[in-house]
Amino acid sequence: MQALYFDRRLEYRPDYPDPEPVEGEAIVRVRLAGICNTDLEIKKGYMGFQGVPGHEFVGRVESGPDADLVGRRVVGEINAACGQCEWCHRGLGRHCPRRTVLGILGRDGAFADYLQLPAGNLFVLPDDLDDEAAVFVEPVAAAVEILEQIPLEPATPVLVLGDGKLGLLAVLVLAAFGMDVTLVGRHPERAERVVGARARFKKEAAPAGDRFPVVVEATGNSKGFALAQRWIEPRGTIILKSTTAEQPAVNLALTVIDEVTVVGSRCGPFRPALSLLSQGKVDPRPLIEACYALDRGLEAFVRAETRGSGKVLISMKAGD
Amino acid sequence: MQALYFDRRLEYRPDYPDPEPVEGEAIVRVRLAGICNTDLEIKKGYMGFQGVPGHEFVGRVESGPDADLVGRRVVGEINAACGQCEWCHRGLGRHCPRRTVLGILGRDGAFADYLQLPAGNLFVLPDDLDDEAAVFVEPVAAAVEILEQIPLEPATPVLVLGDGKLGLLAVLVLAAFGMDVTLVGRHPERAERVVGARARFKKEAAPAGDRFPVVVEATGNSKGFALAQRWIEPRGTIILKSTTAEQPAVNLALTVIDEVTVVGSRCGPFRPALSLLSQGKVDPRPLIEACYALDRGLEAFVRAETRGSGKVLISMKAGD
Repeated sequence: MQALYFDRRLEYRPDYPDPEPVEGEAIVRVRLAGICNTDLEIKKGYMGFQGVPGHEFVGRVESGPDADLVGRRVVGEINAACGQCEWCHRGLGRHCPRRTVLGILGRDGAFADYLQLPAGNLFVLPDDLDDEAAVFVEPVAAAVEILEQIPLEPATPVLVLGDGKLGLLAVLVLAAFGMDVTLVGRHPERAERVVGARARFKKEAAPAGDRFPVVVEATGNSKGFALAQRWIEPRGTIILKSTTAEQPAVNLALTVIDEVTVVGSRCGPFRPALSLLSQGKVDPRPLIEACYALDRGLEAFVRAETRGSGKVLISMKAGD
Repeated sequence: MQALYFDRRLEYRPDYPDPEPVEGEAIVRVRLAGICNTDLEIKKGYMGFQGVPGHEFVGRVESGPDADLVGRRVVGEINAACGQCEWCHRGLGRHCPRRTVLGILGRDGAFADYLQLPAGNLFVLPDDLDDEAAVFVEPVAAAVEILEQIPLEPATPVLVLGDGKLGLLAVLVLAAFGMDVTLVGRHPERAERVVGARARFKKEAAPAGDRFPVVVEATGNSKGFALAQRWIEPRGTIILKSTTAEQPAVNLALTVIDEVTVVGSRCGPFRPALSLLSQGKVDPRPLIEACYALDRGLEAFVRAETRGSGKVLISMKAGD
């Protein structure tokens, strides 16, 4: 099969081996995949990953242990847990120490004709949710995770730092739950197009006058935490979303003095994310910037790496 | 009056000006003061402080707006808030943006014959609580703050990182509230002397096998956060106590991946701390290592700076 393969550098391989059937796992023919900031970080060495990257996808089940799933259009939870340990028993397989993670840790990912995941990780898509919206379910779930970790009263003032892909999705999700959202970023036109009136926009260079009880750090940038510290009020909560290969110097004393809470937030639950998408409460499609065929995947990465880029997709549907 | 004065370097001044009476504030004759890790950091430039350091003290009220207080033996809350702003109205004067902080920010501190604080900051000591225990009320309050911020079920496994002064006080307070405490440090003999059987002791170099749902970082060292990351379990809470001038490089991605919560924790409430001390539930006196007269204050600092030093006190009682 075709695949993008990373081992210190990213390359296109027309003859990458097909996945071998594994008990309990389904093989999915990928239809559409999204390039995420984490993929760009993986290209810089994050997680020391080697293999096929890609973890945002929509596909059709080709084969697997569950006959009802075969032929269905699906998305998939990216953490493949052992199912045996204490974490799995607590329903927190996303933290299972023996987990593999699609396209991130010990498991080939979605930038390929086929991928493989435990059948239990798959969610069948409703017919009226198109591929271009459904491919966002994983990052929308990551935004929903904020509210799973920190239940917030409606109308709470929340500052979202970063108008990249995750930042804009966070605005859409927080607004859908009734928060009073301010967005700090660099691209007012794109923000206007994607989130419209759902958030007040402030330029990143604006002086931090107001402070906020909740700041969502979604800059995708190792300097984001220091920026979040400028906007957070004492006793406030910074939700940290960016995973970067770089380890910035951090003024931890400021966190102590202001008794700030910092909450690391990663993957989220697919079910509520799918429901937001299929009810149209969150429509991420205006974020799409471009779509490339898999054999032009390296170009797709270059486009995604361009400062201020929207969501770049890779489509395998030509061969459908 | 005599005072220790810091302006890029620390010096003893036999003729520092006495405090001038200010409306609403009391003048306190200092009896005993403790050197805290924050004082050592101030000597390295932390907070850019200039003036008389020192914020742990016991004294006797010399004069002030409240006649009932004059002559009483007191300790004092170190944050002097404006009393007018939103923070003050919310009862969080410790975060008032216009606050001064005794010996730390914009206000001369306790390493002097006299200090000055708003009368409302003072707490009268019960007669049966001796100076040597009462001088610990401020750091004991800082340890109580952990439980004010993160209410914990009794018997929760808590790891305290650092067997310095604050770490040992944290063990005493957490044990008094029924937590299942493990202490990681370098000085098993002193830990044994101060906390006895209230915590299991592990050597700092021990491999991090077990992980804990709660880790209190009290190393007083900029490397403490990275160490805490080694011991925290996914979704766990790190309570950050150390304030250091240095800004370490931090692996923030690890916080995101493991969805760890980091809670900055600073000063705490005096009332419950005083009650723990006067009921004998926390006895910090085995921590005392040495006591110097104020004119030997520079020697006291050298002693406090010695690796592994216990609490070093400065006494002004000779002149009583």
